[in-house]
Amino acid sequence: MKQIYFDNGSTSFPKAPGLGEAMGKHIDYNGYNISRGGYSKAYSLEGEIIEAREAVCRLFHCDDVKKVIFTPGATIGLNMVLKGLLKRGDHVITTSMEHNAVVRPLAQLEAKGVLWSRAQCDEKGRLDPQEIRKLIRPETKLVLAIHGSNVCGTLIPIEEIGRICRENRIFFCVDASQTAGSAVIDMQKCNADALIFPGHKALLGPQGIGGMILSRTMAETMEPLFSGGTGSASHREEMPELLPDKFQPGTLNIPGIIGLKHALAYIEKEGLVSMMEKKKRITDAFLEEVGNMKGVRLIGLPAGDDRCSVVSLDFVDQDNAEVAFRLENEFGIMTRCGLHCAPHAHKTLGTFPQGTVRFSFGCFNTITEIRFAAGALNRILCG
Amino acid sequence: MKQIYFDNGSTSFPKAPGLGEAMGKHIDYNGYNISRGGYSKAYSLEGEIIEAREAVCRLFHCDDVKKVIFTPGATIGLNMVLKGLLKRGDHVITTSMEHNAVVRPLAQLEAKGVLWSRAQCDEKGRLDPQEIRKLIRPETKLVLAIHGSNVCGTLIPIEEIGRICRENRIFFCVDASQTAGSAVIDMQKCNADALIFPGHKALLGPQGIGGMILSRTMAETMEPLFSGGTGSASHREEMPELLPDKFQPGTLNIPGIIGLKHALAYIEKEGLVSMMEKKKRITDAFLEEVGNMKGVRLIGLPAGDDRCSVVSLDFVDQDNAEVAFRLENEFGIMTRCGLHCAPHAHKTLGTFPQGTVRFSFGCFNTITEIRFAAGALNRILCG
Repeated sequence: MKQIYFDNGSTSFPKAPGLGEAMGKHIDYNGYNISRGGYSKAYSLEGEIIEAREAVCRLFHCDDVKKVIFTPGATIGLNMVLKGLLKRGDHVITTSMEHNAVVRPLAQLEAKGVLWSRAQCDEKGRLDPQEIRKLIRPETKLVLAIHGSNVCGTLIPIEEIGRICRENRIFFCVDASQTAGSAVIDMQKCNADALIFPGHKALLGPQGIGGMILSRTMAETMEPLFSGGTGSASHREEMPELLPDKFQPGTLNIPGIIGLKHALAYIEKEGLVSMMEKKKRITDAFLEEVGNMKGVRLIGLPAGDDRCSVVSLDFVDQDNAEVAFRLENEFGIMTRCGLHCAPHAHKTLGTFPQGTVRFSFGCFNTITEIRFAAGALNRILCG
Repeated sequence: MKQIYFDNGSTSFPKAPGLGEAMGKHIDYNGYNISRGGYSKAYSLEGEIIEAREAVCRLFHCDDVKKVIFTPGATIGLNMVLKGLLKRGDHVITTSMEHNAVVRPLAQLEAKGVLWSRAQCDEKGRLDPQEIRKLIRPETKLVLAIHGSNVCGTLIPIEEIGRICRENRIFFCVDASQTAGSAVIDMQKCNADALIFPGHKALLGPQGIGGMILSRTMAETMEPLFSGGTGSASHREEMPELLPDKFQPGTLNIPGIIGLKHALAYIEKEGLVSMMEKKKRITDAFLEEVGNMKGVRLIGLPAGDDRCSVVSLDFVDQDNAEVAFRLENEFGIMTRCGLHCAPHAHKTLGTFPQGTVRFSFGCFNTITEIRFAAGALNRILCG
């Protein structure tokens, strides 16, 4: 049976063309380390890592390669920001749509005396930025918001939120897990002090690598969540203040960075905007197909510019898990059913605890696949 | 010029034969996610991850695959143990040979009220286990020790230390960064509550993946240093107590785990002991060559069973950095000069602050390379 992959919100597949081959060649022929040995192989590899940083900067409009910190993924990046920044008595504001990658670290911090408020989004996942403003207190240190919902794809207005944070001298952290590679994100325009992104979703890179871009003030204020050897200031027991070293102890995932560089080069070649437009056409086509389907409730927004290519459906007269199972078992269509590690988002959207079936599209999906999936859904719903 | 790689203590190179190709194929043809989607591709990939856990268990004599936690590397694993376990007022004992991956997290913890003693090793890096016993106090919660020195290769007696810890009901953590894949390590025999290993050194896997094996009590006592979505108990704000989920939030480095599995299969096929013997022959040959070389001071132990294949030399009449530079520039021999992210080890060995030139051998080095390096050293020293 032909396989159709609609779980790009979990990880994109396929990856950037030639990604595995490029990483494989690197590992088999050039798998050295950097910042550790003083030989030329190490230096030339260091150059490749800098090129990867430069590509990240171009994508997110960052002005300094040193502000790009490579992380093992978005979850660890979010933990680094939250736990490195917030101390007892500090107040943080998030939205009601956050992923467990934010909720669970904050639950840990709450137990240690960090204060936490959630700005309520509406039943479509939309956030009125004034909800953030209302929650600001003198001890508010950070606003952290998920840019695009991993449940229903709704985008929140990060530029407006960034302006509110700037006015109130509060740090602003953007979780771009679903939008890095799926939306134009400009660090400067949204006044972000931290932008967190995974490499393996819409950026089409491998799992195990991601990054965070920090503003200078944020980097100076944050304590490193983990520390260790950096190959710099090795005589000192403290982490160097130097960036990116302060937040990058230990051997880096160099094959992952080489892979991310390869994937970013592909995105630059294709054009981010053209890839976004393609994903929008696919998503719009799906939304149109399911829009009038009986027994299907669309969770979140209809077609438009305020959403990304993550779509959640609730099957009113059927068990969602059963629909997801039949989609794969009978039609080879891979989706993701459940709570998507975001119970609060589902509560906001009115789909807790039953969850939804999530269809998340990537730039290699086709209109033909959308038509086929619509046909499959029709057969399941009428069968 | 032919290149000779003697920096395997930083990262092994080459890697296990076919490693890059295997990872590349996985990424290009099977790069899905696990624990996230309910489709068969995800389940079969989950099976591969379990096979990797099983291989780790066989290597370290661990009795339960769930105790194997994959980490991005040894540094993060060490941070997870130290910062997840130790609270204000707790006392920890390390050796005087530790790497900055231990020293820097402990410096952070000391500032937060954790008490820390270092058992003094002798000028060859040897530890008398009674030094540990002497430092034990009622509030001692953990002993953490580097199994094999990353500076001079000296091994410490982990089984004896483990016995002392067991007698005193103290947790014992072994940093096997230099010895995983270079020594027989039996979790049970050394009573280790935590064994930390990188995948990219003597295990011949890629950078970006490592692991820790935890005892059941250690896992129950440790708080997760980072938290997030696990695909399990998603409705809860707390991390699940379930292993390995409690310590593995976010998307795993699946290509890295697939690579580690490939590398471990190679080690099993070749035989760990036979690979160790080969490395010992290479190391012994080098030690013999430099043993009588004028102007060369061997730091650490001569040939024997109480060392691994990391050798540090101090060039008495020359600048160490100059020797390392000439080795590479004139002879293509890659070594590592400096403090090796272990200033306290160098202080113990009497080589601080000048450092040493480190030659670290891997299973693909040859006696011919050793002879060539000896010739090169002779020419540099007599030139």
